[in-house]
Amino acid sequence: MSSSKLSVTLALMIVSMSISYEAYALAHKDEYKIYGYPSSPNTRRALAVLHEKGLSFDRITVNLTTGDQQKPSFLPINPFGQVPVFLDGHLKLIESRAISLYIETVHRSRGTKLLNHKNYKKMGTETIWMYIESFEFDPPASILVWEQTIKPMKGLKADYKVVNETETKLGKVLDVYEERLKNSRFLASNRFTLADLFHLPNIEYLMNTTTKRLFETRPNVHRWVAKITARPAWKKACDAKAWYDKKKN
Amino acid sequence: MSSSKLSVTLALMIVSMSISYEAYALAHKDEYKIYGYPSSPNTRRALAVLHEKGLSFDRITVNLTTGDQQKPSFLPINPFGQVPVFLDGHLKLIESRAISLYIETVHRSRGTKLLNHKNYKKMGTETIWMYIESFEFDPPASILVWEQTIKPMKGLKADYKVVNETETKLGKVLDVYEERLKNSRFLASNRFTLADLFHLPNIEYLMNTTTKRLFETRPNVHRWVAKITARPAWKKACDAKAWYDKKKN
Repeated sequence: MSSSKLSVTLALMIVSMSISYEAYALAHKDEYKIYGYPSSPNTRRALAVLHEKGLSFDRITVNLTTGDQQKPSFLPINPFGQVPVFLDGHLKLIESRAISLYIETVHRSRGTKLLNHKNYKKMGTETIWMYIESFEFDPPASILVWEQTIKPMKGLKADYKVVNETETKLGKVLDVYEERLKNSRFLASNRFTLADLFHLPNIEYLMNTTTKRLFETRPNVHRWVAKITARPAWKKACDAKAWYDKKKN
Repeated sequence: MSSSKLSVTLALMIVSMSISYEAYALAHKDEYKIYGYPSSPNTRRALAVLHEKGLSFDRITVNLTTGDQQKPSFLPINPFGQVPVFLDGHLKLIESRAISLYIETVHRSRGTKLLNHKNYKKMGTETIWMYIESFEFDPPASILVWEQTIKPMKGLKADYKVVNETETKLGKVLDVYEERLKNSRFLASNRFTLADLFHLPNIEYLMNTTTKRLFETRPNVHRWVAKITARPAWKKACDAKAWYDKKKN
């Protein structure tokens, strides 16, 4: 095949791929279903992405306060016994961050653009900050949410030795964030991306605990927290009334 | 703009993007540098990807046994005090999984194809299994590596209460894997992908501990472990002699 013929063939293949993303997005947007619970941090992460994209979807409540996620009726849906579970027709997705990446990939040009799909260097930096959230921020943050928010809701007492040790770890992570946010409006770049969004569920709960001071005593972190928690899509993701509303989205 | 003109413009834009990936990959492959340590699980994860892709790179040793990763000379390179750090010219990447995704994205059509970049549904399933590794497998697996491998190397004693509790958690995760691997040769599909590769560093160490039995008593997990640990790229990633060899790759 000549080089120009190859170029045209390649071009057509890639255009048809690119168009199929959009066609798919338009055709399927009303067939989305999410299993979740409105106060679940991981459910809220996926909801925030759906709202940033302006997508409609059906909600199926899995009551975490009665342990429905561990019942035999739910385990075939997610054998790890967790929400959210996202259904796109016959495709089932679990893990809130994987669901988020999937929605952003399919609907890349709709609503808020949460990743830079066209520039692999920018995408590389966004990916770094998504993994920093997973491996540096989430481990201490989710222990602090567990101790100070979830345990009291279950009638258990927080272990303040654990809280203190974990706050020291989280403080060191936030020192790195403070330095980063001196020169960047958001973590991965000057634009809000999935890397920022992934932090929201833990931050929302921590701002109602004394751990809040770790964020507020670092001025650039404080500014960043104020900005990302104020996003309308996030407010909607945290609104339990909106979850139980009969109408879609 | 007419629809056909738009198609051609789009096609050209996308082709030039696609070609630039390859041109970039060819031009820059010899400018890669990795800071790491040959016995570090996270270093090995990134090395495995580089070897699967057949890329050459320079190695800079950060001696973890003398705590070099926490020294003032290294912290400006990675403020989290961790290896690996990957340099692509002036672009610096941290977090082994982010580095892996970056290399696979840039070199998508070279060497072993570790993700399905053209099919968003298949990529969605691959992303799920990458996040299952991060959030279900890695937490118990890395505690078990810490207790049984790293602590003894530091002259500390393993806490067998922690080992037992954590093995119970890992066993439940491996039950889900066993079921999955009944119908699938690898975790995300019938092909080896980054989702499988991400598990290798912890599995390699756990196969030298009594935790090994959790893998060996599950026949499909056992078959999968044998297959992925036997990959030549993985053997090379674990070869400390290859790390210290003066010549590239």
